[in-house]
Amino acid sequence: MVIIMNPDASAQNIKDVIEAVESVGLEAKVMEGSQQKIVGVIGDKTKLASVPVDAMDGVEQSVSISKSYKLASREFHPQSSVIDVDGVKIGGGTPVVMAGPCAVESREQLFEAADIVKSAGAQFLRGGAYKPRTSPYSFQGLEQQGLEYLAEARERTGLKIVTEVTVVEAIEQVAKYADMLQIGARNMQNFGLLKEVGKCGKPVLLKRGLAATIDEWLNAAEYIMNEGNPDVVLCERGIRTYETYTRNTLDLSAVAAVKHLSHLPVIVDPSHGTGKWRMVRPMALAAIASGADGLMMEVHPNPAKALSDGPQSLTPEHYREVMNGIWKLSKFMQDEGIAVSEL
Amino acid sequence: MVIIMNPDASAQNIKDVIEAVESVGLEAKVMEGSQQKIVGVIGDKTKLASVPVDAMDGVEQSVSISKSYKLASREFHPQSSVIDVDGVKIGGGTPVVMAGPCAVESREQLFEAADIVKSAGAQFLRGGAYKPRTSPYSFQGLEQQGLEYLAEARERTGLKIVTEVTVVEAIEQVAKYADMLQIGARNMQNFGLLKEVGKCGKPVLLKRGLAATIDEWLNAAEYIMNEGNPDVVLCERGIRTYETYTRNTLDLSAVAAVKHLSHLPVIVDPSHGTGKWRMVRPMALAAIASGADGLMMEVHPNPAKALSDGPQSLTPEHYREVMNGIWKLSKFMQDEGIAVSEL
Amino acid sequence: MVIIMNPDASAQNIKDVIEAVESVGLEAKVMEGSQQKIVGVIGDKTKLASVPVDAMDGVEQSVSISKSYKLASREFHPQSSVIDVDGVKIGGGTPVVMAGPCAVESREQLFEAADIVKSAGAQFLRGGAYKPRTSPYSFQGLEQQGLEYLAEARERTGLKIVTEVTVVEAIEQVAKYADMLQIGARNMQNFGLLKEVGKCGKPVLLKRGLAATIDEWLNAAEYIMNEGNPDVVLCERGIRTYETYTRNTLDLSAVAAVKHLSHLPVIVDPSHGTGKWRMVRPMALAAIASGADGLMMEVHPNPAKALSDGPQSLTPEHYREVMNGIWKLSKFMQDEGIAVSEL
Amino acid sequence: MVIIMNPDASAQNIKDVIEAVESVGLEAKVMEGSQQKIVGVIGDKTKLASVPVDAMDGVEQSVSISKSYKLASREFHPQSSVIDVDGVKIGGGTPVVMAGPCAVESREQLFEAADIVKSAGAQFLRGGAYKPRTSPYSFQGLEQQGLEYLAEARERTGLKIVTEVTVVEAIEQVAKYADMLQIGARNMQNFGLLKEVGKCGKPVLLKRGLAATIDEWLNAAEYIMNEGNPDVVLCERGIRTYETYTRNTLDLSAVAAVKHLSHLPVIVDPSHGTGKWRMVRPMALAAIASGADGLMMEVHPNPAKALSDGPQSLTPEHYREVMNGIWKLSKFMQDEGIAVSEL
Repeated sequence: MVIIMNPDASAQNIKDVIEAVESVGLEAKVMEGSQQKIVGVIGDKTKLASVPVDAMDGVEQSVSISKSYKLASREFHPQSSVIDVDGVKIGGGTPVVMAGPCAVESREQLFEAADIVKSAGAQFLRGGAYKPRTSPYSFQGLEQQGLEYLAEARERTGLKIVTEVTVVEAIEQVAKYADMLQIGARNMQNFGLLKEVGKCGKPVLLKRGLAATIDEWLNAAEYIMNEGNPDVVLCERGIRTYETYTRNTLDLSAVAAVKHLSHLPVIVDPSHGTGKWRMVRPMALAAIASGADGLMMEVHPNPAKALSDGPQSLTPEHYREVMNGIWKLSKFMQDEGIAVSEL
Repeated sequence: MVIIMNPDASAQNIKDVIEAVESVGLEAKVMEGSQQKIVGVIGDKTKLASVPVDAMDGVEQSVSISKSYKLASREFHPQSSVIDVDGVKIGGGTPVVMAGPCAVESREQLFEAADIVKSAGAQFLRGGAYKPRTSPYSFQGLEQQGLEYLAEARERTGLKIVTEVTVVEAIEQVAKYADMLQIGARNMQNFGLLKEVGKCGKPVLLKRGLAATIDEWLNAAEYIMNEGNPDVVLCERGIRTYETYTRNTLDLSAVAAVKHLSHLPVIVDPSHGTGKWRMVRPMALAAIASGADGLMMEVHPNPAKALSDGPQSLTPEHYREVMNGIWKLSKFMQDEGIAVSEL
Repeated sequence: MVIIMNPDASAQNIKDVIEAVESVGLEAKVMEGSQQKIVGVIGDKTKLASVPVDAMDGVEQSVSISKSYKLASREFHPQSSVIDVDGVKIGGGTPVVMAGPCAVESREQLFEAADIVKSAGAQFLRGGAYKPRTSPYSFQGLEQQGLEYLAEARERTGLKIVTEVTVVEAIEQVAKYADMLQIGARNMQNFGLLKEVGKCGKPVLLKRGLAATIDEWLNAAEYIMNEGNPDVVLCERGIRTYETYTRNTLDLSAVAAVKHLSHLPVIVDPSHGTGKWRMVRPMALAAIASGADGLMMEVHPNPAKALSDGPQSLTPEHYREVMNGIWKLSKFMQDEGIAVSEL
Repeated sequence: MVIIMNPDASAQNIKDVIEAVESVGLEAKVMEGSQQKIVGVIGDKTKLASVPVDAMDGVEQSVSISKSYKLASREFHPQSSVIDVDGVKIGGGTPVVMAGPCAVESREQLFEAADIVKSAGAQFLRGGAYKPRTSPYSFQGLEQQGLEYLAEARERTGLKIVTEVTVVEAIEQVAKYADMLQIGARNMQNFGLLKEVGKCGKPVLLKRGLAATIDEWLNAAEYIMNEGNPDVVLCERGIRTYETYTRNTLDLSAVAAVKHLSHLPVIVDPSHGTGKWRMVRPMALAAIASGADGLMMEVHPNPAKALSDGPQSLTPEHYREVMNGIWKLSKFMQDEGIAVSEL
C-alpha cells in the first residue's frame, strides 16, 4: 500500500501515519519530494484491514498495490491447477463443455437435452433446479424434483452434473445429487453461501458477478478455498455495461487476466454472456482461442418452448455446429503449439 | 410487450407468434407496414414468463413495455406509503436519519457513537454486527455480541436499531434485537434471503444493488412484499460506474425515479455512495433537496481507528454540521411549499 | 508515480528502472520488502510522459499518484475562481441560470422562449444553432441564421447568450454572436477544438464527456487554459451507465469533487442529465443544495412541438416553478450559512 | 416506434398522438387493453425526428424499434462489403493486419518498425502523426514531419499507410500521404470531422467511441457514407466499463453484432482494447476466431523507450509470435469451414 499525503500535511501527520502502520507489524518508508510526500507500506496486506489510514489527518488517499487473495493467486501457486470432477479434468489442455437447458422443466425435456448434449461430446450436463429470477412471478425451478431428474439423466448418459445452489439450506441436498455445485452471478458475494460451499466437499463452479471486478471475483474464490475447498473453477459470463444490444458484455480479456493472476481454471458462458443464440458460436470459438479451459452453453430441445432464457438457447442443430467447431479449433491450436496457456 | 419481426418473417412465423401469445390467455394485435411487422401483446405481463417469443422463428426481438412488479408499483397503489417502525414514521415529510458506525466494534465504541447520533437528533442507530467484506481476511463483525450491544444502545438512547442480515439462518436472531432489518447491496438479488425477510414481521431496509437497475430494485422489493411484508424502505447507496474518484456514483435521480414509479419511501446513503467523508455533507443536502425521505450515514467517534470504512465516516463534529444543515433545509422546503414529494 | 515490480524482478531490472526515471530528472526511491519491491518517483509528473516504465522488464504496473493538470487545479490556485461573462458573475454564491430551447428552431420560437427565460430571472439564454446529432437524418440546426436570432434575442431581453460550437471553422463566427461558447459532451476530448477555443477570447462552458472521468474533464479544461484562456466553467450533464430509465446518470458528486480538486465554477444540466422533464425540478434543487454554481435547463414554449429533446424540456409553467424553488433555496442556504462552497 | 400511453391517458391524448404521427406521413395503429394503451407507428423512422411524442400529454414513453441508419445496415445491403484500399482487400476471408508504433517518433524508429511489421506479413503500417492525448503536456505527435516519414516507409516496404486525422483542416494533408484515414475513438461523434472525411475520397477506418453503443457507432459510419464515401471499415478497440484491470474492456461480441447488423468489415485492436501487451496474443487469436476481418496492433522496436503506449506495445519477438498464430488459425478455420462470416 502506498499512502499519499496532502501537500499541506504536517510532520506530525506523517509521524502518526507511520506509527499506525508500525502498530500492526508492518514497515513504513517515507518518500519526500518538493510537492509530494508518500508513505510506502511493505508487508502482508491482510494486516492492513484494521488500519484506516485514509481517515487520518493529512492523508489524501491510499493506493493498494498488492492483492488481498492468496490461495487463489498464481504468485503463491505458480502451477496451473487441474480440477478433477469425478474423473473429468478441468484445465490442462482439453476443453470441458457443460451444456444443457437453462432450467430443468420436465423429465422428458431434460432427458432429450441430455441425449443431445452427450451425443456431441460434452462432459457435463447443466440445468437449474433452483432458478434465481428477477421477478418473483417468473418460473422458479422444480427444486428437489429437478435434482432427481438430473441424477437420473446422469445414470442414463454418464454425464457429470453441475447445477446451481442459491441458499445455504439446499447445499447438502444439491451436493447429494450433483457432481459440481454452481454459484451464480447474483450470489458471487453472498459470503455466507461461499463459506458453506467451501465445506461441502464438492468442486465449485464460481460465476463472475454481474458487475464484479476480477479482483472481487478472485476474492470470492478465496472465500471458498479458505474453508478448505481447493476445487474452484471460474466462469466468465458477461458483465454489465452501458451497451444494451447484448444482454451482458462478454469479457474475454478476463480469461487472459485470470490466467495471469491465478492458477485456477476458467471457462466461459457465451449464452448468458450475449443473450442471443446467434452469437454463441462466434463467442464460443473466441473463448477457446483466448485460452479458456472450457465452455458452458445453453441448449434446449425446443428453445421456442423454453420456460426461461429461450432467446439464448441453441437448438440441437446449432449446438452440434458449435461443438464441431470448438473441438477442431482446440485440437488444432494444441497440435500447432499456438494454444494460449498461462500468461 | 411488443414483438418485432424480422423483415423477412413469413406469414406462418407471425401466425405462430400469435398462437403462442394467445395460448397463455393474452391478446395479440398485428401491425404491418411496408418494412416492419410488429405484434403487440396486451394483458398481464407476468403470464409472458413462459412464452419465449424471442426464440421463435422470424422474431427479431421483443421489447417489454410494462413493469413486472405490482405491489411495489405506484400504478397499483397511488398513495405514497408511510412505514411505521415502532412509532417512527418513514415517509410523509419529516426526514428520518439512520446514523452510526459501519461496524459494531466494541461496547464502548458503540455507546459513544450512539450518544453522538442521538444528540444531533437522529431516530435510528445503524451498525453492522454481520459484515459482508470483499476479502475473507477483513474484519467480519462481532455477530451475536454485536447484536446485544445494539440492543443495549437502544435501551440507553431510545434510538431504533437498523442492522444488516446476510444469511437466512440469522434472520430470527437479528429480528429479535433489531427494529428494522437491512438487506445489503450485495444481497439485493439473494432471493432466498428476500423471501425470508418477507416473512419475518419486521420492516426491511432494502439497499440498491451495486449495479442494479431501478427495475431490478423494485422487483427485489416485490419479492419481500409478495411474502406478506408491505413495510419496505428503499435505500440508494451509489452504483458502480467507470468513475474511480468516488467509491460509487451516487444516483440521486433514483430518488425521483422511485417517487414516480413506486409508493415506497426511499432514503439515501451518501457515505457508501461517495466513499469520502468530505462529500457526505453536500450529498446529504442534495438528497434532502431531491425529495429523499431520509438519510443513512456513517459516523464514528474516531474514524482514524475504525475497523472498516474509516475514510467515509464522519467525525462527531462533521456529523453535527451535516445534521444542522439537513434539518434546516428540510423544514424550510416544507414550509415554503417547495419540497419534492411524489412526481 | 509508484512503480510496482514483479515478485521475481531482478536487481538489474530495478537498476534499469531507476536509471530511466533519473534520465528525465526525476528522483527514484526504492522500497524493498520480503515479497514486494516498489520504486517511488518524486517530481513533476509531466516529465514522465516519455518514460514508459510499464513496458520495462520486471515491472508489474505503475500507479499514478499526482494530477496531470495544473492550471485547473486547486492545489496551484487555492482560491475559487469567479468567471465574469460581460458583467454576469459565475461562481461566488449567487447561482447562474442558463435556460432556453435545445435548438433554435425559428425566430418566433426563440423570442417566445427568451421572454419566458428572462421573466423568471435567468441570466443566460441557451439555444443550439449547430446541433450534434447521433443520426445524420436528424435536425442539425439553423447555423448562421440561428446565431443571428440569438443575437436579436439578446437585444430584446438583455440575456447573455451561450451556444455550442462544434467545429474549429465556426469558432470565429460563433464568438462574434455569443457571450460564451459551449463545448458539448461529444467534443470534450476534441483537442483541436479545445485548443482553438482557448484562443478565442471568450469564456467557455465545458460540458463533461459522456463517459469522461473527472480527471479527463479537468485535463480538457487544462487544454483550454493552457492556450491562455482562464475563463472556463464546467458543466456536469450526466454520465453513461448501465441504467436505462434515465437518459444519463446525473453525477452530482462530481460537483463536490470539482469543488475539492479545482477552483473553476461548476454548473449542472438536469435536462440532459435525466432526459425527463419530470425529474428536472428535483435534480435542479439537489444541484443547488450540493453547491453547484448554477444550472443549465431546457425550456420550450411548447415541448410537444420541439424539433429536438422535447421529452426533457420544461413547459413555461414548470420552468417558473423550478426557478421559484431554486432562488428561494439558494438564498436560504446562503443566509443560514449552510451553503456548500469549497471542500 | 411504439408509443406507450399512461394508464390514465385520455381519449383526446391518444387522438393528439395519432394526429402528430400522421402529420409527418406515418401510419399509427392503436392497441387498447384493460391496463395499457399503445400506439404503434409504422414507416420510415427518419421522419420521426420532428415528432417529439414523448413530450405530449398522456405519453409514458416511446420505444424505438427500427434502426436510424440505412447505408450501413445489412437490411438495405445484404451482401458483406469488401473494401479495397489500393489493392488490399478488407473483408472477404483473409484477415488484414495493421501494425506499427502508437506514434511516429523518428525516422529511424518508424523504419525499424516498418521492417518488422512487413517481415511478418502485415499489409498496413500504422503510426500516429497527430496524437490526441488526455493531457496537453503529453507528446502530441510529429505532425507534417510524421506524415512524410510514413510516406517514405511506404516507399521502402510497400505497406499501405493508415493514420489518424483529428481536425478538419488536416484532412487534405493527411489524405495526400495516407492510404486510409483513421477516425479515433475520441472523435467518433465529432460529426463535422465525419462529414468531411466522407468527402475526402479515401477509405476510412472508424474506431468505436470510448463509450459508444453499437447503434451510435453505425450511425457514425452513416455520417461518412451519407457524404458519398462507402469505404468504411469499423474497428472495435474496447469500451469503458467499471473494470480497471484492463485499460478498456474489449467487446468481441461487437464483432458478431456488426456482422449481423451491418455489411461493413470490422477489425479489432487488442492493444488499446486491453492496454497490456501480454494480453494481445490471446485477444488477437480470439478476435480472428470470432470472425473479425483483421487486426490493428501496436508494435515498437523497443517498447520500453516508446513515447506513448509502451505498456501495450509488442516487442518484435512477441509480434512475430502473434502473427504466426493468427495466420495459422485463420487459414485453418477457412479450410475447415468453421470460420464465422455473416450471422
